[in-house]
Amino acid sequence: MRDSTIVDRRDLEFQLFELFDAGSLTQRPRFAEHSRETFMAALDAAQAIAEEKFAPHNRTSDDHEPQFDGQRVSIIPAVREALQAYCTAGMLAAGKDYEAGGMQLPALVAHAVQSLFKSANIATSSYVGLTMGNANVIERFGSPAQKRKYLEALLTGRFFGTMALTEPQAGSSLADLTTRAVPRPDGTYALTGNKIFISGGDHELSENIVHLVLARIPGGPPGVKGISLFTVPKYHVNDDGSLGERNDVALAGLIHKMGWRGTTSTMLSFGERGECIGELVGDPHHGLAYMFQMMNEARIGVGMGAAMLGYRGYLASLRYARERAQGRLPGEKRPDAPQVPLIEHADIRRMLLAQKAYVEGGYALCLYAARLVDELHTADSDNSRNEAGLLLDLLTPVVKSWPSQWCLEANSLAIQIHGGYGFTREYPVEQFYRDNRLNLIHEGTHGIQGLDLLGRKVMMHDGVALQLLTREIDATVTDACHDANVSAEAEALAHAWREIETTVATLRPVLAGQTARVLSQANAFLEVFGHATVAWLWLRQGLAASRALANLPNAGDEAFYRGKLHTCRWFFRHELPRMQTHHSLLRRLDDTTLTMAPEWF
Amino acid sequence: MRDSTIVDRRDLEFQLFELFDAGSLTQRPRFAEHSRETFMAALDAAQAIAEEKFAPHNRTSDDHEPQFDGQRVSIIPAVREALQAYCTAGMLAAGKDYEAGGMQLPALVAHAVQSLFKSANIATSSYVGLTMGNANVIERFGSPAQKRKYLEALLTGRFFGTMALTEPQAGSSLADLTTRAVPRPDGTYALTGNKIFISGGDHELSENIVHLVLARIPGGPPGVKGISLFTVPKYHVNDDGSLGERNDVALAGLIHKMGWRGTTSTMLSFGERGECIGELVGDPHHGLAYMFQMMNEARIGVGMGAAMLGYRGYLASLRYARERAQGRLPGEKRPDAPQVPLIEHADIRRMLLAQKAYVEGGYALCLYAARLVDELHTADSDNSRNEAGLLLDLLTPVVKSWPSQWCLEANSLAIQIHGGYGFTREYPVEQFYRDNRLNLIHEGTHGIQGLDLLGRKVMMHDGVALQLLTREIDATVTDACHDANVSAEAEALAHAWREIETTVATLRPVLAGQTARVLSQANAFLEVFGHATVAWLWLRQGLAASRALANLPNAGDEAFYRGKLHTCRWFFRHELPRMQTHHSLLRRLDDTTLTMAPEWF
Repeated sequence: MRDSTIVDRRDLEFQLFELFDAGSLTQRPRFAEHSRETFMAALDAAQAIAEEKFAPHNRTSDDHEPQFDGQRVSIIPAVREALQAYCTAGMLAAGKDYEAGGMQLPALVAHAVQSLFKSANIATSSYVGLTMGNANVIERFGSPAQKRKYLEALLTGRFFGTMALTEPQAGSSLADLTTRAVPRPDGTYALTGNKIFISGGDHELSENIVHLVLARIPGGPPGVKGISLFTVPKYHVNDDGSLGERNDVALAGLIHKMGWRGTTSTMLSFGERGECIGELVGDPHHGLAYMFQMMNEARIGVGMGAAMLGYRGYLASLRYARERAQGRLPGEKRPDAPQVPLIEHADIRRMLLAQKAYVEGGYALCLYAARLVDELHTADSDNSRNEAGLLLDLLTPVVKSWPSQWCLEANSLAIQIHGGYGFTREYPVEQFYRDNRLNLIHEGTHGIQGLDLLGRKVMMHDGVALQLLTREIDATVTDACHDANVSAEAEALAHAWREIETTVATLRPVLAGQTARVLSQANAFLEVFGHATVAWLWLRQGLAASRALANLPNAGDEAFYRGKLHTCRWFFRHELPRMQTHHSLLRRLDDTTLTMAPEWF
Repeated sequence: MRDSTIVDRRDLEFQLFELFDAGSLTQRPRFAEHSRETFMAALDAAQAIAEEKFAPHNRTSDDHEPQFDGQRVSIIPAVREALQAYCTAGMLAAGKDYEAGGMQLPALVAHAVQSLFKSANIATSSYVGLTMGNANVIERFGSPAQKRKYLEALLTGRFFGTMALTEPQAGSSLADLTTRAVPRPDGTYALTGNKIFISGGDHELSENIVHLVLARIPGGPPGVKGISLFTVPKYHVNDDGSLGERNDVALAGLIHKMGWRGTTSTMLSFGERGECIGELVGDPHHGLAYMFQMMNEARIGVGMGAAMLGYRGYLASLRYARERAQGRLPGEKRPDAPQVPLIEHADIRRMLLAQKAYVEGGYALCLYAARLVDELHTADSDNSRNEAGLLLDLLTPVVKSWPSQWCLEANSLAIQIHGGYGFTREYPVEQFYRDNRLNLIHEGTHGIQGLDLLGRKVMMHDGVALQLLTREIDATVTDACHDANVSAEAEALAHAWREIETTVATLRPVLAGQTARVLSQANAFLEVFGHATVAWLWLRQGLAASRALANLPNAGDEAFYRGKLHTCRWFFRHELPRMQTHHSLLRRLDDTTLTMAPEWF
């Protein structure tokens, strides 16, 4: 299967079994019926559907984006066929309980399964990704009646779901939402308002669409403390599960995007006729907290999507670099010597190495987050579960933002390796670049992630989450410093992490007094923290590779492990040191940005 | 005029008159009839046409790219109308002699004039940009008969021109061109072969198209030493200037691109019927040298296009950041306080500052190159002209590559400031990002520019060009080190430039012996050299602003100069120091890239 265009299975299996020890999860009661073989079977099934049903129409649905004729949205038939195959195979419930019709896979494996669909077709996979997040919220916070009404329908793909947060005047600033939800005598609510950028907000791919809508109940507090969450179905659902009348949710228009064009992005109008009925989820005024449950999972999903778009471009450009002959090496004086494959050129190899470092590093980061989800839910002590939760909270902004930034850069390098061909729509890489640009924006912009990391996550509970991560990193350093293959990298990581700690120690005492000044450099902190975290995951990969090389089970794997080890080195030599400027700016509380007066632009 | 969406005239005039002293050029005999007023009049005329005829269809021609029905290419009518207005106003010959119907503008001003069209509509402006380059080659290397036949027609826009280098198997590797040109008894040549990525290769925007084609005359030497240059018109031209029969040049197909979609990119087939007739330009086997005449100018044009696409995005996002209210500042506890304009947020200002630094720095770099062209042609001593030529040679790869890299990054930041709206085709910034991605590829890829700079330009003539640039930089440092507003930046530049010199001194002795190893880091050298060069141009801007502030002619300008000074500081604090990692990798001849075996990927 190594020749797939959507995944390097050898790397995926390395990450799952050698890096994140998926095998040990089968010791836990919840996963007792699983084994390496069942994990592989799930991946095989997913890969087959992804390759046969998702990948083939990736370009087609970009060329033929959804159309709205004022009545209905039309989408090329291949999207529906792919989603039906996906749902029929039970992929929507891959991580859910057997009783709920799920496969009860660990989050680590379930995310790996989803990653294959993201790689094959990010736009088509979005419909089910949103549905999964939606189902999770209802499962966790919905009433028994809401669960009966929606949960099975969502987990089987009969209904699809959305998350409807953003409004035209309230993008990053959710405090400014104005959609209203007025109580009705029967306990339901009448919603009125407009939402924008609602992905999957209308289509005919499923029987029904369940919108999770943030809105205000009149009389509640202003700001984010007065936001409640509602289920608003496109079609009402009768008690027997059959569909009733159309609810008063109207598609006001489709948004036309640079990339990710296969997913409908919609403007929705709720209650134009005054007849939009929704049900409150959980308690009034707690909607944002519930939605963040979904949002945090969505952020791992965004990071994974970014990593997979990067990965797909890497695989495409690697293949191109091996097959395309162009030019000769320095020192070749014979003008009639045959041209060499692109991969022989140093600058091409630089661009492949950078891509490999970004995409395999980003993939590891996302899979590590998924592994933390397993710890959070199935670790055998309260303490372990609690620690996993803290680490996940801390790392979520990094998991969302690092792949979005660096795997987009990988996509640019994939174009570059293709030369002029890469800029054409006859080759696939330009689409990955366009698609991936969204990931820096949705589910909390890059800027928001920086503020979340420096302003909240690093400092929370007196920095206890940071201490936990430091403990993990120190453990890896201790392991690696005696291995001659990676001891220099272990030392470099130890140094880089001390730099992070020093910067945090410098900023912590001044954060309260000089909040604006400290946070004006949140982006720089996100940069240094992200690179150091990924350096850690590269050191873990390098160490695993070094150990495997010392005792090769399969000589055919030598090249694979040498590649891991070398890429680890490259990241430490070429990437990690680039962060030093940011540290000094952070520590001296540089205010160059803050003191640029708006009128000076 | 400051409210234009295509240009900040205040900045343009600052660069022309305060930074590059356009006024002094009017002292030279060639420009004696010019004055600041005539320069401004040319800019006004250009701006009016650019805004009225070029900008309005920029999105339309992206949405409706040229179509080929097998017979003819159709292009939306607005393109033709814009080009007619441009040609009628004499813009094609803005820099040419009065006798040739030109305006005899200095290159500095002529490039500024063209920059307005590039900003307004890069795709439409390409047709005339290529024509200008084509005319320059014929003017310089063509026979008197060829000049009679083509030159006036090109300079008035009756004919348009192309440069036909690339073939499917020979992209960056021009040595591998195989198009053949066989002598015919009448002194002309019969051409056969296929070209690809030929911009403006077919259309009906002009009466005729003159292709400048690289091809091999049988019996010549292999490689680049056996390439000759030919004029191949789409329609033969009779002695009286009227059009004759169609030549045997066929459009094999249009290429569909990610951006820059308004310019036809073509596959051309020469001599399918054996009847493609061309004329040799200059001597046999010297074609590449002639073409590089055009290519070097084209590279300045590419840098300028990249800078202007970045500039346009900057202006759009600046306007958006001023107008769009979103969120509140850190410390604002009242949830019902009004939202503030985006520009009040530090992270937005960071993204505006970075854009301003990249686009005004990139623009200065390109205008400086244009200023060198004036020195090359009109300086009053052989020595000055010679020195200008050396500096221009040295800097051409930087002028081409730096704006392509950093103004693309600016375009990404412009999207980011727009949030979700930036990713939609309802706003202009995503198109600038797509359009600008080409600039890293065409007219010599980014990788080629790095090899040219480190492998050739820096080392040429025992490094004399580098010494000349060092002299210029030292002069600025000497000027600036006594000005308290910029003395820290002067010191930083002096240091950064000593670092460049040290790196070059380290690499020079080993280049011949370890060519592959040294050149494997050509990209890193391009990074450090580009940033140091632009830092110099920022110091010059900062110094000019500081002096202006000391003696303000016009109080309304204070904000403008403060902005220049502050952006200069930002570049020195946030950008320049980031280059240090590259220096250490370069000096220790890091071979991590080179030693990554192809099979390890």
